[in-house]
Amino acid sequence: MIKIALDAMGGDFAPSSTVQGAVEAIKENSDIKIILVGNEEKINEELRKYSYDKEKIEIIHTDEEILMKESMPPALAVRKKKKASMNIAVQLVKDGKANAVVSAGNTGALMTASQLTLKRIKGVLRPAITTIFPKKNGKMVMMDVGANADCKPEYLEQFCIMGMEYAKILLEIKNPKVALLNIGEEEGKGNELVKQSYELIKSNSNINFIGNIESREMLTEGKADVVVADGFTGNIVLKTAEGVAKTIFDILKEEIETNFLYKLAALILKPVFKTVKNSLDSSEYGGALFLGLNGISIKAHGNSNGKAIKNALNVAKKFAESNFIENIKESIDKKERVGGLK
Amino acid sequence: MIKIALDAMGGDFAPSSTVQGAVEAIKENSDIKIILVGNEEKINEELRKYSYDKEKIEIIHTDEEILMKESMPPALAVRKKKKASMNIAVQLVKDGKANAVVSAGNTGALMTASQLTLKRIKGVLRPAITTIFPKKNGKMVMMDVGANADCKPEYLEQFCIMGMEYAKILLEIKNPKVALLNIGEEEGKGNELVKQSYELIKSNSNINFIGNIESREMLTEGKADVVVADGFTGNIVLKTAEGVAKTIFDILKEEIETNFLYKLAALILKPVFKTVKNSLDSSEYGGALFLGLNGISIKAHGNSNGKAIKNALNVAKKFAESNFIENIKESIDKKERVGGLK
Repeated sequence: MIKIALDAMGGDFAPSSTVQGAVEAIKENSDIKIILVGNEEKINEELRKYSYDKEKIEIIHTDEEILMKESMPPALAVRKKKKASMNIAVQLVKDGKANAVVSAGNTGALMTASQLTLKRIKGVLRPAITTIFPKKNGKMVMMDVGANADCKPEYLEQFCIMGMEYAKILLEIKNPKVALLNIGEEEGKGNELVKQSYELIKSNSNINFIGNIESREMLTEGKADVVVADGFTGNIVLKTAEGVAKTIFDILKEEIETNFLYKLAALILKPVFKTVKNSLDSSEYGGALFLGLNGISIKAHGNSNGKAIKNALNVAKKFAESNFIENIKESIDKKERVGGLK
Repeated sequence: MIKIALDAMGGDFAPSSTVQGAVEAIKENSDIKIILVGNEEKINEELRKYSYDKEKIEIIHTDEEILMKESMPPALAVRKKKKASMNIAVQLVKDGKANAVVSAGNTGALMTASQLTLKRIKGVLRPAITTIFPKKNGKMVMMDVGANADCKPEYLEQFCIMGMEYAKILLEIKNPKVALLNIGEEEGKGNELVKQSYELIKSNSNINFIGNIESREMLTEGKADVVVADGFTGNIVLKTAEGVAKTIFDILKEEIETNFLYKLAALILKPVFKTVKNSLDSSEYGGALFLGLNGISIKAHGNSNGKAIKNALNVAKKFAESNFIENIKESIDKKERVGGLK
């Protein structure tokens, strides 16, 4: 039985979304148990809306919670609110009482809580945040999307290794292809960080490295399964993608409103627009993982609905069942160099 | 009379696109003259398709041209093919025989040719490439989108100054608002480069600085008229935007194809889709400018059609008529510091 701790108070629509997600997840999976951490009264109020197997859901009560918009910095909130639902949920993983934790709460807070409590895997220089992007004929993993604004080549090399292990499980690909995000495809392109990282990654025979990739082609051609960047660049890519998608749909909506016939046609195309939107929505894929920590900590999107929470719980299960952490440990230790580098 | 040198052989559809653009531009503007540089025979073949004022178009013949996909690096091609249409067109500006140059040819080559021939404005540390983005209720300028992969805070400070002068003319805004592209809005966020640049920019009282902006909000909220980034990050933003837009339209097309009714509705919405596409297409706004050079050099998109070339020629005219270069010179010289910095 896999046990997953869920921060019941985390997210824009919590605890309604989290409780719904938990109930749906236990219906879909016979072999998981969810531990809901948060205000017992509020959780029970939501739970009363469903019929479900009561053996599969446990509640751990706490009054404290970390808000989506804390007045203090998230890292401080984590340290001050020791009894916050998020902190307790993460601690359950540390104590071996849960196999994974899921939260749709404040990203910075979850990162801090996870790092402080779970600690890094031995040998990992920096943990990274992942995201999923749609690409031609599939999905891909990108990282780091925000944990490390300043990186060294050695960090990016490890992101490649961890990204491969992540993609093996999440995307179910045997030997994921890894590319370095760059502003040109040829070797020797890019800024200093990328140029140095290229050399290092190329020389590591355990990385299935296909070279540089541009942010346009990584989406439209989709040759890579894992794309690696520093946390500043990765975060910019993620937010640009969100901004462009929103801009397109905003202009589309505005234009459609100008004409009755357009409105009618748009009504017919509603399912199409929905498919397009969903295929771009990373929360559809079950949230982001903090890669490199000694425990499975999954961040669902802040605006997750019940379905998105359920997806995140499913992903948590997938990783909890695998040898993910051990595999990263092993892959990091292997340092077989080819060519000139030692 | 403003004279604009046009690289008639540059671009995917040259010389058909360039000749068409030139003819349209002289019809729209009574006070410009276009110098078409390239293969005279091929140019005349295209010109014969139109009736136009022959006084307004001049041809300078050359057999050489820089290809869109040169086998050698663009910078080398510029040096080797001294008689290439692009080189001659840029030289006309240097020699005072033209007030501006426009090319839809190889970007790297035009940048090299422009830098080598026109040189930097005195005091400018690094020239930058600009682009135009759509934003909520208008347009904005972004730079650097690729000239400088590695930047120093001093470069970014100057990009702000040059970007303001650029936006004043292009967007016709009196006191453009400048923001720094970052992964958070608060001061103190970001990587080392951005943190240091923030301090420097904030202390320069000639910059109308509104602080950090995220790549999502710069599009969806549109608070800034000028957004500044290093050339690596800026290029990644540009290419991500192109990739996301293409992905959205690809998925849309694919979904529409699945059902006859969808196809019909899409037919009705065709003008809407076209408007959305156009509003995202930076070539609609007349191309990118190499900011900081001692002459006006405008890069039209490689896949420019006649209309896009005409737009680029119109922008070239706008800048040629202004005191753009002198204004940059003056603004760069002014270094009024507030606060702790000298």
